Amino acid sequence: MIIPIEICQPESVSYNIYIDKLPQLEFNNRVAIVTNPTVAKYHLGSVAKKIKAPSLEIIEVPDGEEYKSIDTVLFILDKLFQAKFDRKSTLIALGGGVIGDMTGFTASMYQRGIDFIQMPTTLLAQVDASVGGKTGVNNRYGKNLIGAFYQPKAVYIDPEFLETLPKREFAAGVAEAIKMAIMFDREFYNSIQESDLSKPKNVVELIAKSVELKANVVNQDEKESGVRAVLNYGHTFGHVIENLTNYSRYLHGEAVAIGMVMANELAVKLGLLSRTEADEVKTLLEKNNLPTSFAIESIEDFYEHFYLDKKSSQGNIAFILPNGKIGTNIIRKDIPKEIVIEVLEKFKG
Amino acid sequence: MIIPIEICQPESVSYNIYIDKLPQLEFNNRVAIVTNPTVAKYHLGSVAKKIKAPSLEIIEVPDGEEYKSIDTVLFILDKLFQAKFDRKSTLIALGGGVIGDMTGFTASMYQRGIDFIQMPTTLLAQVDASVGGKTGVNNRYGKNLIGAFYQPKAVYIDPEFLETLPKREFAAGVAEAIKMAIMFDREFYNSIQESDLSKPKNVVELIAKSVELKANVVNQDEKESGVRAVLNYGHTFGHVIENLTNYSRYLHGEAVAIGMVMANELAVKLGLLSRTEADEVKTLLEKNNLPTSFAIESIEDFYEHFYLDKKSSQGNIAFILPNGKIGTNIIRKDIPKEIVIEVLEKFKG
Repeated sequence: MIIPIEICQPESVSYNIYIDKLPQLEFNNRVAIVTNPTVAKYHLGSVAKKIKAPSLEIIEVPDGEEYKSIDTVLFILDKLFQAKFDRKSTLIALGGGVIGDMTGFTASMYQRGIDFIQMPTTLLAQVDASVGGKTGVNNRYGKNLIGAFYQPKAVYIDPEFLETLPKREFAAGVAEAIKMAIMFDREFYNSIQESDLSKPKNVVELIAKSVELKANVVNQDEKESGVRAVLNYGHTFGHVIENLTNYSRYLHGEAVAIGMVMANELAVKLGLLSRTEADEVKTLLEKNNLPTSFAIESIEDFYEHFYLDKKSSQGNIAFILPNGKIGTNIIRKDIPKEIVIEVLEKFKG
Repeated sequence: MIIPIEICQPESVSYNIYIDKLPQLEFNNRVAIVTNPTVAKYHLGSVAKKIKAPSLEIIEVPDGEEYKSIDTVLFILDKLFQAKFDRKSTLIALGGGVIGDMTGFTASMYQRGIDFIQMPTTLLAQVDASVGGKTGVNNRYGKNLIGAFYQPKAVYIDPEFLETLPKREFAAGVAEAIKMAIMFDREFYNSIQESDLSKPKNVVELIAKSVELKANVVNQDEKESGVRAVLNYGHTFGHVIENLTNYSRYLHGEAVAIGMVMANELAVKLGLLSRTEADEVKTLLEKNNLPTSFAIESIEDFYEHFYLDKKSSQGNIAFILPNGKIGTNIIRKDIPKEIVIEVLEKFKG
């Protein structure tokens, strides 16, 4: 006997991304802001003033990628249980990508899912992490290996948050914007090349264009069965670099910058990018205070680390590359190990 | 500036529930069976023979509701990472509701979600837990308070699994079938009253009808924003009983049986059920070897425990009751504390 189950989902999931000064927000139920001491120092006061709710909890977790762990998620969950949060309560993620990913993951599992709102305070989170519903934590096997696809109810991007952002973190955000441009939009790439990112107006444009491109991709492919994987350009290599350096030497965007340089070297070797454009990208990254080199200790070990990547199913490593020129993309799963090794040799320390 | 996100979900989630002898199953990718030593002893050998996969892992977790915890989920996750499972791997839950809920929850978060299959071996899991995609674990604050809505790829219900099931666990499964009947289907209720459940044929019918009723509810309301809450008839009281007895004295179905008796007393008090029908239900439960009484130590404490229930938002406790007679239902959130207390007094130990 076969009984079919068909769960109808007549409505698509939809929400808005607001790029503007944070408005007044009103809630009918309990709210908790999840943040870290660094962000709290600069922004918690002003954000808390904007929120009207029957009760407002502040949950502070330590600052840093090394705390993006299941333990921190369990800590947040415990705070919510202690405060007797219910299914109608809301979490607000006030911080960078680490805070956003952990808060979203926590919201996804608290009583099987409560609302959450993204308030990204770093450029990286504003242009990338806060949009798209990827949540999760790292573990000793790698980055973001435990998590959920869980969409926020809204994303509030206030560019004023960036005023207190360290220069290095700002650069890390620019790296992800450059990634979007290289993969999808030559015109956007040109505008980044030409723009002066010390001017707030140009930064707002950078954020808006990045978010728009990302929203397009996510709309088409929430769960990364197809085009969404393209967003991992620079990440196949970048994740290995982060892993090998214990997530402490580089910011995520910095590792992605190096990863893009490595991916481009592979693309050049495969005839998918001209030497001129590869060099052009390197120059743009350097101009934006991003690292572009990494000394690999063991080539074999580096290669082995690719297999921890979620995209590498069945032993086929997925490389995301420009497809002939800047502004185009291709996912290649057929690249022989020898060719990759030859490229990695160039980075041997 | 507002950028709207709309994630299109053109296809509804659909899968089949097979009620039959377990067929041969073929997989192109790695498979892990999650089970416990009790189930493994009786069924693992025969099930493993039916599975063809490039590699088959067996992950054994301790038997018992007390191990339905985030720690056990982390243990399973770790085994998967050690075995280098990827996004195309599949988990099979071979066991009762505890195994099914934990395996589903683990599958939902491993690399943000991999496939899982339910193979329920207890009557309770066959008629109820394996269908509908509720996954999760308990913690010290209550049952199923951490989890996800995550649907299996298929459910294989082999009634032969029941041949080794202890009598008490069989009865616990009958309790959930009786619950479905009382809430949705007087005719089904009559057939349970008349049927001889020592005959396998009658058990298959019991399973099929329960699953069909449940599938109907889940199709309408996956995430329990409406009608699905009705499935919690008997559970509002039952969860408190389980919690107060540390999940050790009663099987889940037994606690639900007592919970239904309590709910019915409340329904009688509110004029929503006749004394005759309330007594009829009690008799049917007792005939099926289910407990129908519980000695409450502290009425106040019992009442306080209602607030831990996920359904009780904003301090309104949701009571699910027959709506006039067997085969109908209503959710009531407006019942004054005094009335509930009066009903609880009848159960004072």
